[in-house]
Amino acid sequence: MTTKLLAVLFAAALTSTTCFSQASQPAVVEDFKPSSLNQPGQEYPQVNSQGYARFKIKAPKADSVRVSLGLGGRGGTILTKGEDGFWTGTTAGPMDEGFHYYNVTIDGGKFNDPGALNYYGSVRWESGIEIPAHDQDFYALKEVPHGNVQQILFPSKSTNTARRAFVYTPPSYEKDKSKKYPVLYLQHGWGEDETAWSNQGHANLIMDNLIAEGKIKPFIIVMTYGMTNEVKFGKIREFKIDPFQTVLVDELIPYVDANFRTLTNRDNRAMAGLSMGGMETKMITLNKPETFGYYGLLSGGVYAPEDLNGKAKPKLVFISCGSKERPDGVTKAATDLKAAGYNAVSYVSDKTAHEFLTWRRSLHELAPLLFNK
Amino acid sequence: MTTKLLAVLFAAALTSTTCFSQASQPAVVEDFKPSSLNQPGQEYPQVNSQGYARFKIKAPKADSVRVSLGLGGRGGTILTKGEDGFWTGTTAGPMDEGFHYYNVTIDGGKFNDPGALNYYGSVRWESGIEIPAHDQDFYALKEVPHGNVQQILFPSKSTNTARRAFVYTPPSYEKDKSKKYPVLYLQHGWGEDETAWSNQGHANLIMDNLIAEGKIKPFIIVMTYGMTNEVKFGKIREFKIDPFQTVLVDELIPYVDANFRTLTNRDNRAMAGLSMGGMETKMITLNKPETFGYYGLLSGGVYAPEDLNGKAKPKLVFISCGSKERPDGVTKAATDLKAAGYNAVSYVSDKTAHEFLTWRRSLHELAPLLFNK
Repeated sequence: MTTKLLAVLFAAALTSTTCFSQASQPAVVEDFKPSSLNQPGQEYPQVNSQGYARFKIKAPKADSVRVSLGLGGRGGTILTKGEDGFWTGTTAGPMDEGFHYYNVTIDGGKFNDPGALNYYGSVRWESGIEIPAHDQDFYALKEVPHGNVQQILFPSKSTNTARRAFVYTPPSYEKDKSKKYPVLYLQHGWGEDETAWSNQGHANLIMDNLIAEGKIKPFIIVMTYGMTNEVKFGKIREFKIDPFQTVLVDELIPYVDANFRTLTNRDNRAMAGLSMGGMETKMITLNKPETFGYYGLLSGGVYAPEDLNGKAKPKLVFISCGSKERPDGVTKAATDLKAAGYNAVSYVSDKTAHEFLTWRRSLHELAPLLFNK
Repeated sequence: MTTKLLAVLFAAALTSTTCFSQASQPAVVEDFKPSSLNQPGQEYPQVNSQGYARFKIKAPKADSVRVSLGLGGRGGTILTKGEDGFWTGTTAGPMDEGFHYYNVTIDGGKFNDPGALNYYGSVRWESGIEIPAHDQDFYALKEVPHGNVQQILFPSKSTNTARRAFVYTPPSYEKDKSKKYPVLYLQHGWGEDETAWSNQGHANLIMDNLIAEGKIKPFIIVMTYGMTNEVKFGKIREFKIDPFQTVLVDELIPYVDANFRTLTNRDNRAMAGLSMGGMETKMITLNKPETFGYYGLLSGGVYAPEDLNGKAKPKLVFISCGSKERPDGVTKAATDLKAAGYNAVSYVSDKTAHEFLTWRRSLHELAPLLFNK
């Protein structure tokens, strides 16, 4: 079951899930603006009010330039060369709201768009573009007190190195030096790393805004690299959770508890993850039910009542995905868990697929449910 | 004088300063290994024990692929296409030890090497490569207690936004909650940003190692973006220090002093910067001599005794550059300052140019001299 689930997650991660909402497209409105994720001063890529993306890339002597976004398996967006040596093109339809990874194929080689910022996904630094979402306010940078995101280097005997994690501390953390906080351990997906949740996920801004609105009890978030053992596509069956479980449970958690003001009991510790990070969350919470009190799977599979049977009961099981994924499975799993007496909550992100807007929204839904029991 | 200095710094920053040490080169030793700055799992670019770099980039249908590194103004390293669709090439000679930015021109367009990690320089995210230095131990990741590097978002009324800075706190920071620390404000160069000193500069590791060896008094480092007003090449004369000085002195320093355990008097506050950051350091320390007690210019110009005349006397003036820059000017400036009664120290990094190994070494020399008077 686990390897099958992993196969599904891999497939979801590797398939370009940029969907077009209609077969017949409306006329393209010429109100394109630079994407909010462009490198400083770069005019392209651009996005219009309908969600179309337009690309412009200089390569005067190239024979072909193609952007991976736009037509999924059908080859993305093919750019055409102008007399000025710039290749331009617009997606064939509006794209889903939110964040998308992409890359550019130039004469058969895979490169990034020099206009866009880079984000680690698919085991490489990819270009990123943002289609403004109608609900983007919840992860906007606002004039509210801001928490910090700090890089820590923690000792790891099992991997014989110092490993990196990022720790979000809420705005109040430096004020009241006696207060201790619950901790959420939050994992990225396959091919991503510990930078994903703060870079493309805006986890820190989501928290800052929720805290400013008084909607959540402030807590710490810890994000580290979850592909401790390499997971190559095609070798999924060889995946073992043990190396990462050791790093997380035996090395990182004790380090965080020793170096931050944390509440160290099970009911003040949560684990959640997206996609493959959800699968890791499921495996580790089931192996170590005494360590975590709250579980979250974001586009990362489900728990069945029998998975939890006979173990320390979780305070909360949160299961989510995008409406363009498999929402029925998520909803049914929560229904089954509730029927079996568990506190289970499902969430389906409207009109999104296996991408980061689904997970930003999922974190926004999950956070108020944590550490309240 | 200031604009002339800035012109020199711009020229230094924009000129590819990768020098070859000999006219006649030794035979290339075939012991190439992946650069330490490659993306995970990437075999290329590679570096050999002599300092040659070898590149391998897939672009089967391209007509020309050229790497900017290797021959400076003479066009870099031209790659040649193999039957497998990969373009390969080796620099014509050994490169200087340390970190180098580069990019790849493919059929006339400028892209990055998909094998290498990216670093912000030249107002774009560039590819980076590391030629192992004989003295690299001082910035190596070792089994010592590690400080944290945290991203803060501080309110800035003058620019009407929350601005980002990175704050290094020493390993002891979370242990003794009553201890307060001095602060070094450390600036990047033209075209770089607040990520430079920890990413390509390894400022945190340099500090961790010096602290572990008992060679310095632990202090905090704060790094923020110094090109608050845009500085375009060709518009140098329009550069004004005021916008950045306001952000630094009136907004960032009060925020840091309110949110970290800092010693807030002049003699516990230093400012230093590399290249254009050195020029900013000079301007701001001369405008605000009551704010900073220690000054450092790293490949960023010099102070003359008459610059400091009649102002609050600095505890230390540190001036450095690479031996391939203008070391005589740096040495002479320190001599003149000492003759005029100032505590001045010069440092010349051996066999390096206007690049990051010069600045890593400079920080390593500067740190033990700070906050000791």
